[in-house]
Amino acid sequence: MQAEPEYAPGYEELYEEFLAEAAAINDLGNVAGLLSWDQDTYMPAGGAEGRGQQMATISSIRHARLTSPRMAELLAALEAADLPPHSVEAAMVREGRRAYGRATKLPTRLVEELARAGSSARQAWVQAREANDYRLFAGELGRMLALKREEADAVGYTTERYDALLDEYEPGARAADVRVVFSQLREDQVRLLGDITGSSVTLSDAALRGPYPAAAQAAYVQSLAAKVGYDFRRGRLDETIHPFAESVGLDDVRITTRYDTDNLATALFGTLHEVGHALYEQGIDPGLARTPLAHGAGLGVHESQSRLWENLVGRSLPFWEGAYRGLQAAFPAQLGGVDLSTFYRAVNVAHPSLVRTEADEVTYNLHILVRFELETALLAGDLAVTDLPGAWNERYRDYLGIEPANDVDGCLQDIHWSVGLFGYFPTYALGNLMSVQLYEAAERELGDLDAPIRAGDFGPLLGWLRRNVHAHGSRYSPPELLQRATGASLDAGPYLRYLRGKFGRLYDLQATQESP
Amino acid sequence: MQAEPEYAPGYEELYEEFLAEAAAINDLGNVAGLLSWDQDTYMPAGGAEGRGQQMATISSIRHARLTSPRMAELLAALEAADLPPHSVEAAMVREGRRAYGRATKLPTRLVEELARAGSSARQAWVQAREANDYRLFAGELGRMLALKREEADAVGYTTERYDALLDEYEPGARAADVRVVFSQLREDQVRLLGDITGSSVTLSDAALRGPYPAAAQAAYVQSLAAKVGYDFRRGRLDETIHPFAESVGLDDVRITTRYDTDNLATALFGTLHEVGHALYEQGIDPGLARTPLAHGAGLGVHESQSRLWENLVGRSLPFWEGAYRGLQAAFPAQLGGVDLSTFYRAVNVAHPSLVRTEADEVTYNLHILVRFELETALLAGDLAVTDLPGAWNERYRDYLGIEPANDVDGCLQDIHWSVGLFGYFPTYALGNLMSVQLYEAAERELGDLDAPIRAGDFGPLLGWLRRNVHAHGSRYSPPELLQRATGASLDAGPYLRYLRGKFGRLYDLQATQESP
Repeated sequence: MQAEPEYAPGYEELYEEFLAEAAAINDLGNVAGLLSWDQDTYMPAGGAEGRGQQMATISSIRHARLTSPRMAELLAALEAADLPPHSVEAAMVREGRRAYGRATKLPTRLVEELARAGSSARQAWVQAREANDYRLFAGELGRMLALKREEADAVGYTTERYDALLDEYEPGARAADVRVVFSQLREDQVRLLGDITGSSVTLSDAALRGPYPAAAQAAYVQSLAAKVGYDFRRGRLDETIHPFAESVGLDDVRITTRYDTDNLATALFGTLHEVGHALYEQGIDPGLARTPLAHGAGLGVHESQSRLWENLVGRSLPFWEGAYRGLQAAFPAQLGGVDLSTFYRAVNVAHPSLVRTEADEVTYNLHILVRFELETALLAGDLAVTDLPGAWNERYRDYLGIEPANDVDGCLQDIHWSVGLFGYFPTYALGNLMSVQLYEAAERELGDLDAPIRAGDFGPLLGWLRRNVHAHGSRYSPPELLQRATGASLDAGPYLRYLRGKFGRLYDLQATQESP
Repeated sequence: MQAEPEYAPGYEELYEEFLAEAAAINDLGNVAGLLSWDQDTYMPAGGAEGRGQQMATISSIRHARLTSPRMAELLAALEAADLPPHSVEAAMVREGRRAYGRATKLPTRLVEELARAGSSARQAWVQAREANDYRLFAGELGRMLALKREEADAVGYTTERYDALLDEYEPGARAADVRVVFSQLREDQVRLLGDITGSSVTLSDAALRGPYPAAAQAAYVQSLAAKVGYDFRRGRLDETIHPFAESVGLDDVRITTRYDTDNLATALFGTLHEVGHALYEQGIDPGLARTPLAHGAGLGVHESQSRLWENLVGRSLPFWEGAYRGLQAAFPAQLGGVDLSTFYRAVNVAHPSLVRTEADEVTYNLHILVRFELETALLAGDLAVTDLPGAWNERYRDYLGIEPANDVDGCLQDIHWSVGLFGYFPTYALGNLMSVQLYEAAERELGDLDAPIRAGDFGPLLGWLRRNVHAHGSRYSPPELLQRATGASLDAGPYLRYLRGKFGRLYDLQATQESP
């Protein structure tokens, strides 16, 4: 993987120093990861205040190291050293510069104001939800938006402010490009949803209702995670209210899940989702450990991995053709009398719903479109904060055909905006699109994957993802990674064809029965 | 607790800056505590290498903050500010200076050599144990001793080198004083042990052999810990191979224990021991959080708390008069037919044994005496490394009347010396002595504690310990703390009288039947 270019004189020592400093910064990030993991899993309640202080201390030390005068000198010298543009060394320096830039561009005053505003808006959001009163949140949201505009201006952008925010989560992405892709999604997915709701076929997820005892679910998803390739020697699975994957280092990537005794799907697909994120981090080339490249390429690519294992594998018929007998053995009372076809349909019910986190494959992107359109309009000032609930409900009516009865199930449902996460939502949909592009590229190289997946052999697929996605860490930008792995740039076509094919069969939609 | 002295001009700002810096240093110590706790509890095996790097990074950052030029300036300025000698502010500066001194006196070269020697000697120790061959360890022990002499010289001392090492664990203690106290212990405890082995009474611990299922033990010790006052809202109890207490902050003090299905005493008294340590940290005045005083006064005082709860409370008759019925209910099959008196005797069997960690109250200090005498002789060069096994065995014969058949159960049994812990062992015995001095002082103030303990009311005792020991953190040196709490200096008398009284009754020793 390492080229051996002609180096500028003195280069080696500077590069070594840069890597040593980056390693310490990486350690601090991993320590922060553990502090956060522990807070959500085993920390006693009384530890909360102290934990906040510990996190602030580590974060401030990390920021100081990231933005030190010496780091500036090292980056400038290494950039002047004319590293071959495609070398791993150049990528290290590029990512070092990116982190330095993000950390130095925002004045301390703004960083502190954003932290305070996030804390206060989050509190207001909780209160607004409790009271089901959007007005309690509107003022804080307005203040947050003003600060995010300042942030965008400080970071810099060429076309529109939103790009500066989006870039933090999806390096190099632009709102204009996202808009083009999303408009194609909107049209097709709205039509597909209409076809499904108009279909005479009705699927039932009654089989998932159980009750399913949590302990038995835990045992099952533990073995499920191991079976698809999650390495428990370099990770662990715990229970939390909100599932997540957290990297404490490339050899310590932990996941959590949640058990809903009345809905088996929560743990099954939640676990596979986090396993997908964790496989990415566990698959990064060990040679990149503790370097600026020791993490995923961006949130979109990361989400492509979680969605691939959750949906393209986990909600596929071949997967359950292989795995269903084992699931029945784990839950004989609940599933002994449910046949495979009924179960497969149960985990693929598609219907319009109000809450993003519970959405199926057909509707998920529509929830994202609503948020993307509204957050770009809010940031640009084209939508007033007071008009958000109306605009939200209008779009749900247009895209999903239903309207929330209250703002708790409407524009107050996600925490993201309250803590300043603008530009984050699109990565969920971008991940969906990339998941199918990558899966199809893997099948082009490996041949049809149904048979190995049916046989419980995930090695070929995981191996391909390791070689083409995971191993590289953040060496390549998301578009470059996608191009190298699939030979194509971001494209909504494959995802839409996949949806149409799968749900056409499930809902007996005539028009698409012939699609290949 | 805070005096309000006249400050030197500019004092307040310097003091604030000093406290802010100390808070960050304290946070880093707590973060290191979590890294260590996690390593021993939930970290996946693969995380070990990365964890080592994270610990090294945090430790090096902490060291740099502790020894920064600015810290030197602050300490010098605050020392020149003529703080009232008994104020809490003066204690803060004193402890800051102590930490600074320890961290700056050793040259980096020596610190690194000690770390390397510790790692290599520890490995040699493991191999020597596996091969039951002391010679595989002797060379490494010799190198470690040479480095510890260098360390003592760098730290400085007035009388003997050993004092410089002892001071790290027991601030202000001197080998000469320890020697005086220990010689009194030796004579009395050897005589008591002789009386017990000569007694016609034999106690049996057969009732502890079970088997006791681990899950039932876990449930019981969880409730036991809560009952004596351990605050689970600010702590938690997990299982590890080697039990420990670890502070992640004053509101997050975690303990671990171990379950031996063939020996109920392991979990019962191991848990109470760690609870004792944890009650100390949980009881430190919240106002001292994140300051240089936010930890115990020294290892001896710390051990006095663990031994007090383990032995003076946990192995007492009044305690089991109150608690035994509950224990029987938890283990009806194992203890339903065992009466209180039999159980009380079972947990107080005294007999000479070879292994310190399994020693009873009568013999524990004798194990410590052997180690103290040998480590002072080794450090002074009065005992050659090659002669250690012989000297060890001779002393076991003299003090305990038995001799190890091999060095694994002899001078290779403890890890301490291999990792450079010289001067650490005496604190175990000092803790035993102080535990009785403190307990008797509590009874002088509160009256006899048997009745409340029998009634399961540990509040009076814990309250007294909080006020007189815990709350102060490291505001006072160990001798000062002991003086304030008990009105006396360190004294072997109370402990020896306690042993003679308790075991005189248990073993029907005529000479002491009359003692009050």
